[in-house]
Amino acid sequence: MTRWLDEVPWGKDGLVPVVTQEFSTGRVLTLAWMNREALTQTAESGQAVYWSRSRGKLWRKGEESGHTQKIREIRLDCDSDAILLRVDQAGGIACHTGRESCFFRKLDNGRWVATDPVLKDPADIYKK
Amino acid sequence: MTRWLDEVPWGKDGLVPVVTQEFSTGRVLTLAWMNREALTQTAESGQAVYWSRSRGKLWRKGEESGHTQKIREIRLDCDSDAILLRVDQAGGIACHTGRESCFFRKLDNGRWVATDPVLKDPADIYKK
Repeated sequence: MTRWLDEVPWGKDGLVPVVTQEFSTGRVLTLAWMNREALTQTAESGQAVYWSRSRGKLWRKGEESGHTQKIREIRLDCDSDAILLRVDQAGGIACHTGRESCFFRKLDNGRWVATDPVLKDPADIYKK
Repeated sequence: MTRWLDEVPWGKDGLVPVVTQEFSTGRVLTLAWMNREALTQTAESGQAVYWSRSRGKLWRKGEESGHTQKIREIRLDCDSDAILLRVDQAGGIACHTGRESCFFRKLDNGRWVATDPVLKDPADIYKK
């Protein structure tokens, strides 16, 4: 029953890049990473689970912020080395800066310019 | 004038992952890679240029297929380690299989199922 997992070539570091997109609007929210366990848990739980490269552990998206991602679709690309999630983003905020998308900067005349508003203060998102 | 390029931490292998999305529909087309030269040429030419990891060289998207990607926006994520292109996809086909998107398979009951039609026979796309 795990043959679909074996079709992903997990590579040297055991990770694949994962594009996550808001289902309703198509907005690209994040580029994150999964290992085999993260993809397994994502498929089983119906909620996005990534591998945090900086923390070196599984990362249940929203475990601190509450900004979970409910899975609508899991897609695989032609080379089987990238995954696309289409999700319902809780709170409409995917980024730790309080913005909808992590891709909030646009190249404009040789500068990266933040174009998207902060929807919620990170201090309020991550308060204990 | 290249400070915007220096803001990308080019990493050990000198590559960053690049998500490419059709501007008009929001469909995610590809996950590819860029090095510094590819991003420079993309910004200067207004056409997507990637780094082909399999061929180990710059890859002007569409150089063989004609399926070029005209840049509408170049975006950078919060950690500066992923890029998002919003493009006009020539021919409406990004995938070498002749489909719109490389993400044409969906996880369905423990199997990857091809859900998208082949719009053009690859033999016709790549004929000399």
